[in-house]
Amino acid sequence: MTVPVRHIASRDNPDYRAWLRLAQGRPGRHDTRVILEGEHLCRAWLEHKGVPQTLVVGESALSLDWVGPIWQDCVRSRRIVLQDNLAAVLSQVEHGPAVFFIVDPPAPQPPARITAGCLWLDRVQDPGNLGTLLRTAAAAGLKQAYLSNGCASAWSPKVLRSGQGAHFALDIHERVDLSALTRQTDIPLAATTLERAEILYIKDLRQPCVWLFGNEGQGVADDLLELASWRVHIPQSAAVESLNVAAAAAICLFEQRRQQLVAAVRARTSRREKNQ
Amino acid sequence: MTVPVRHIASRDNPDYRAWLRLAQGRPGRHDTRVILEGEHLCRAWLEHKGVPQTLVVGESALSLDWVGPIWQDCVRSRRIVLQDNLAAVLSQVEHGPAVFFIVDPPAPQPPARITAGCLWLDRVQDPGNLGTLLRTAAAAGLKQAYLSNGCASAWSPKVLRSGQGAHFALDIHERVDLSALTRQTDIPLAATTLERAEILYIKDLRQPCVWLFGNEGQGVADDLLELASWRVHIPQSAAVESLNVAAAAAICLFEQRRQQLVAAVRARTSRREKNQ
Repeated sequence: MTVPVRHIASRDNPDYRAWLRLAQGRPGRHDTRVILEGEHLCRAWLEHKGVPQTLVVGESALSLDWVGPIWQDCVRSRRIVLQDNLAAVLSQVEHGPAVFFIVDPPAPQPPARITAGCLWLDRVQDPGNLGTLLRTAAAAGLKQAYLSNGCASAWSPKVLRSGQGAHFALDIHERVDLSALTRQTDIPLAATTLERAEILYIKDLRQPCVWLFGNEGQGVADDLLELASWRVHIPQSAAVESLNVAAAAAICLFEQRRQQLVAAVRARTSRREKNQ
Repeated sequence: MTVPVRHIASRDNPDYRAWLRLAQGRPGRHDTRVILEGEHLCRAWLEHKGVPQTLVVGESALSLDWVGPIWQDCVRSRRIVLQDNLAAVLSQVEHGPAVFFIVDPPAPQPPARITAGCLWLDRVQDPGNLGTLLRTAAAAGLKQAYLSNGCASAWSPKVLRSGQGAHFALDIHERVDLSALTRQTDIPLAATTLERAEILYIKDLRQPCVWLFGNEGQGVADDLLELASWRVHIPQSAAVESLNVAAAAAICLFEQRRQQLVAAVRARTSRREKNQ
């Protein structure tokens, strides 16, 4: 069944006003939907999650080559053509062609036990940091992210933008009680800290672990840090006090990836030698 | 000689208006000064660069414990007490006590030849990324950063904030012609790319190199990439397209640091064994 296409030309249209609030990161009180903007995120949604509830296209974006197929794919969605000046206000991207999906964010089922490497974030507040952390975790091959209360909202426009599609490569669990979650965890919990910590580069990281990173100013909460089974630190120059949380996470996650890749190559080489 | 303290209570005061433009990242046309806000940056300036041209303190911040010594240290600067409501508008930090330095940014002399490891950035536009890159470079022990035209302004308030003091641990050279600079470079130029690239983890990184990173969307400009002597790539999951530029830099710089630390430990151990 094809739903008739609607046109919106008034800034007072209640749908438009609700989308604007989503785009500006201040959704209406009971509005749990999210807005995705642009080719990259909309295509990623189609690929991973199927058709959106609602497709909104700016008038002049309709004629673009890449918009046509999306418009066709969404024949069973509510499709809205938005007057260009309204679309420009809705857009959070400079000079971007205006194409938006309005969707319900995924609500993945958390696994009963945590047995695979994953990312835990304790009150990471900056949307850019949060998006970058998710993107780095996905690039490192992790599949799950658990966010405490006090983290930025994972599906807000800024986090989506800096996540660059990581939202579709990860199951993201929000408002998680991380202390309680430690009781369901069958692998080591690793945190970066300066006290009683081992140097990252001499720690054996070949087995999977939970990586826990904390708030930009305060780090991981003390009670949570006490639950960590691995405490590591990144050796750095005395010239600066600390690393940005997303930079620290990139260093840790990819040091683990390096150790795992080296181990895999060694195992392969040793098997080959035995077979000769 | 002590300069008399001035009070400013009007939003139309021309000095105040100029500072506001600095704070909002849109300085007047010929105004090359920068504004530093908060305890951390102001103390770092005092420690590394001496007293500022001008110290601006919000009325009620004057009585804070940590502000007293700064006020005394700046007895030879122009000292301004700002009415609280004006200070609140000037502040770019939520609920921060209002203390500002107005200073001329350092203009470090570039070395004649580049012989020590350093950071080159080609059109990195996001202030948060630029600040994080500088912070990571300083944490990795680099001393020099070279920024092309088209990079965000290194001394803008947002870059200062995400740099977290890195600006005082590095010499920062702005508006540099990076292609021309390759002729003054005596160490390898390393860039991350996917084409014709070696895996980062098997590249020997023990000798210093120039690390070159590029624009968030487009990467390093093609002509500049062609000048790179080392082309490396970071092995990552197929689930996402790429890493954030500051995350990629953290991985590269700290992989080099790891290799250098391991080499130093090995050299020490081998010397000790010889001496036994």
